Amino acid sequence: MTDQHKTVNINIRKDLFGANEDAAALNAALFKKHGITVFDIMGSVGTGKTQLIETLCERLRDQHKILMIAGDLATNIDANRVGSHGVDTVQINTGTACHLDARMIRVALDDVDLSNYDIVFIENVGNLICPAGYSLGADKKIVVVSVTEGPYMIQKHPLTIKRADMIVINKIDLAEVLEFNIDALVKDIREVDANLSVHKVSAKTGFGIPELVASLGF
Amino acid sequence: MTDQHKTVNINIRKDLFGANEDAAALNAALFKKHGITVFDIMGSVGTGKTQLIETLCERLRDQHKILMIAGDLATNIDANRVGSHGVDTVQINTGTACHLDARMIRVALDDVDLSNYDIVFIENVGNLICPAGYSLGADKKIVVVSVTEGPYMIQKHPLTIKRADMIVINKIDLAEVLEFNIDALVKDIREVDANLSVHKVSAKTGFGIPELVASLGF
Repeated sequence: MTDQHKTVNINIRKDLFGANEDAAALNAALFKKHGITVFDIMGSVGTGKTQLIETLCERLRDQHKILMIAGDLATNIDANRVGSHGVDTVQINTGTACHLDARMIRVALDDVDLSNYDIVFIENVGNLICPAGYSLGADKKIVVVSVTEGPYMIQKHPLTIKRADMIVINKIDLAEVLEFNIDALVKDIREVDANLSVHKVSAKTGFGIPELVASLGF
Repeated sequence: MTDQHKTVNINIRKDLFGANEDAAALNAALFKKHGITVFDIMGSVGTGKTQLIETLCERLRDQHKILMIAGDLATNIDANRVGSHGVDTVQINTGTACHLDARMIRVALDDVDLSNYDIVFIENVGNLICPAGYSLGADKKIVVVSVTEGPYMIQKHPLTIKRADMIVINKIDLAEVLEFNIDALVKDIREVDANLSVHKVSAKTGFGIPELVASLGF
């Protein structure tokens, strides 16, 4: 056995990013015109993005008019869950596309009367890689990570963390039983961005949610 | 509040798939010429793909010559972990690309003497969406899911499941504490493909690993 360890770096071109940025700027202008605050919520499958949005909707729906836009390959599961809280929803099924883009948001909102809303939660397609490259025109990009994802998810996604405005560490009620080191995860985040807003929450138990809501400006 | 629920379907073109299939066929012929059995192992971040490969290497390395190819955006973490078991590794850093493709494998193997090996484990980039669309020329596509991912990951990725040759449900030692319904997950798999090979394992405890190794043909 030769015990070789070799590293190959692959570069791919990203011609589409310019067009997406233009569309994102148009979305942002549209949201601003209507006085709507928009959150682009991304994270892997199973990190609890939907449960987090449900919890936020329960807290905010009496004082605010909320629209939830759900990105998903094939199902309406997440939109139905959030819709059951009396919140309007738009489902975008992307087929095989691993992320939402700004034009999908524009198409999805084409016949929606935005004057009905003052908060939009966009739940992006469930993975931590592709959504980071495509601005949607949101005010804040929130990355949801979970103690169920193992110790390397920050180190493996430095660009996603760099582009985030806030990190939510979810399911911290499971940290002890999974022997998960939250301090080490926060240290990994701090190494990418020393000043990034980090919230430790459990969408299930409600821990940390009041502080998160305040930090979102409500 | 209007209580609207709307669904928009996005179709994207996939011009690149034909070229990838050609490259995958060349890879498959190359592997066959050298008598190498190749496994393309895909799954989200934190499902335990690397730990599974480490466990399989521990079982197989005395009787077989193993090469591990690791796909990762930015780090060498997984290749280093597997390499620590005395197995040769090739790291492919994809930058922002959310999957390996057949040409990356070809480039990565360009100066590797394949006559040194009889098993290749390819650990794909960590997500359950993009890798499914790109054949690498492997003999089997193995999808690793985990009880930590929540109940919807099969329903949300029907194409990935359809294209898989085997599903490994990992971390079943955590099913009870996470109140995870494995039977319901298996039922979801059966609804996509009634005959798909499904293995329940814990790469950590070793549960189910002997049966999995036998099923891989060793």
